[in-house]
Amino acid sequence: KRHRGELRYEGKAKRVYASSHPGEYIVEYKDEATAFNAAKRGQWAGKGATNNAITAHLYPMLEAAGIPTHFLEQLSETEQRVRAVTIIPVEVIVRNVAAGSFSKRLGIEEGTELSRPVVEYCYKSDALGDPLINTDTALALGWATEAELTRVRALALEVRDFLVPFFLERGVRLIDFKLEFGKLPDGTVILADEISPDTCRFWDAASGEKMDKDRFRRDLGGVEDAYAEMLRRVTSPALG
Amino acid sequence: KRHRGELRYEGKAKRVYASSHPGEYIVEYKDEATAFNAAKRGQWAGKGATNNAITAHLYPMLEAAGIPTHFLEQLSETEQRVRAVTIIPVEVIVRNVAAGSFSKRLGIEEGTELSRPVVEYCYKSDALGDPLINTDTALALGWATEAELTRVRALALEVRDFLVPFFLERGVRLIDFKLEFGKLPDGTVILADEISPDTCRFWDAASGEKMDKDRFRRDLGGVEDAYAEMLRRVTSPALG
Ligand SMILES: Nc1ncnc2c1ncn2[C@@H]1O[C@H](COP(=O)(O)OP(=O)(O)O)[C@@H](O)[C@H]1O
Ligand SMILES: Nc1ncnc2c1ncn2[C@@H]1O[C@H](COP(=O)(O)OP(=O)(O)O)[C@@H](O)[C@H]1O
Ligand SMILES: [Mg+2]
Ligand SMILES: [Mg+2]
Repeated sequence: KRHRGELRYEGKAKRVYASSHPGEYIVEYKDEATAFNAAKRGQWAGKGATNNAITAHLYPMLEAAGIPTHFLEQLSETEQRVRAVTIIPVEVIVRNVAAGSFSKRLGIEEGTELSRPVVEYCYKSDALGDPLINTDTALALGWATEAELTRVRALALEVRDFLVPFFLERGVRLIDFKLEFGKLPDGTVILADEISPDTCRFWDAASGEKMDKDRFRRDLGGVEDAYAEMLRRVTSPALG
Repeated sequence: KRHRGELRYEGKAKRVYASSHPGEYIVEYKDEATAFNAAKRGQWAGKGATNNAITAHLYPMLEAAGIPTHFLEQLSETEQRVRAVTIIPVEVIVRNVAAGSFSKRLGIEEGTELSRPVVEYCYKSDALGDPLINTDTALALGWATEAELTRVRALALEVRDFLVPFFLERGVRLIDFKLEFGKLPDGTVILADEISPDTCRFWDAASGEKMDKDRFRRDLGGVEDAYAEMLRRVTSPALG
């Protein structure tokens, strides 16, 4: 059994603790919600547990599909054990359908199906508001190497190829999602962080209803229920 | 001799006319200057002539260096004859040194040398303020094909490789520049539009003084002189 060590990093949605086991961290999912680079703040009981459970359910399936991840084990309602990595400071957004900042920036109606997936990169910096970048910029500023970015892109698209049918079989359209990758001490790139309604856009396949953080961002109400329903969908068998 | 036909397009800095010769346009360079997506406006006598002359001087040298361009012939102080193309609605920005929107967005001091050139793409749309995109977005939204984007990038870097030493030999650091490419009826991608102090950042190599549209954008004064001096440099022989 691992023991939780000192707090290494407190983020907007999670706390990262040292572990008695070297090379590992213990991640605690918080009940806090933020949006628009923490300009909007909220919280509700059970949010941390829901996102912890969703990530703990998805990451082993991604591993089984051949995608290396940081996930090791769920420890408690709100905690999980992960491989410690050096996070690559480039957030990876994969888009299947236009929505959010993409729709706004490009004047494309939310819900417009993209003819092919779009991978976007943002520099992970709260101070700068996670600005959009491209791979040239990441390379020129030393945020990642060419080999790392090639791997990151390939893995991000593999995650998409797994998740899109997985969610569709559970009555959910995966509109877009954000991933973070990290490097193990030997340089191996693995999927880190979380996959949850905080980091994805999920639309009910039948009704089109939003089942993700946009309910919080846009004050649509029913946030708790949407997150809980997403956990139920994720842990349900595929529809007939 | 070509005759100027009807006005086909009036932009912020140029007018594009039909030509009596099919497959050609006559471009007239205006004295108007705009910045920040036309939120700031100005003009001065001789601006159009200067930019016309600079472009008319540079494009044949680029052609000689193996880069296909739209430029055919200077017709008058403010006019030039070009091949008519379908403009690819993706502006290409090549950066050697951090400056302008790049510095601001990424919190990197202006003047920071980039370890490798950065090619950025923006969607050419005044209504949207020329938003930053990437190649995935251009492909997904049908603004260009994969082959076109590969060619555009290669040509943009060839332009850089020609211009950087060309300007340095004339005492000017080429900080960054914006290009537009177009397609001939047979699909060939060629360099279109202009290369001038409106579309480049030029810094005097000795003093660091700005010799480009930033003097207008930032109200630094001496705009006319800077443009005139850049024309002098462009048409001067290489320094010893
Ligand atoms: N396996 C890991 N090793 C090290 N850091 C990680 C790992 N997985 C995620 N992280 C980082 O831990 C933090 C998670 O907390 P979060 O609340 O999401 O932070 P943030 O507000 O920075 O997004 C993030 O900074 C994330 O990059
Ligand atoms: N060879 C060409 N054929 C057709 N259009 C061109 C060609 N070269 C440039 N253009 C277009 O002509 C216009 C030039 O005018 P400009 O004042 O720069 O316009 P804008 O305000 O749109 O930038 C631009 O829209 C540019 O894309
Ligand atoms: Mg986070
Ligand atoms: Mg223009």
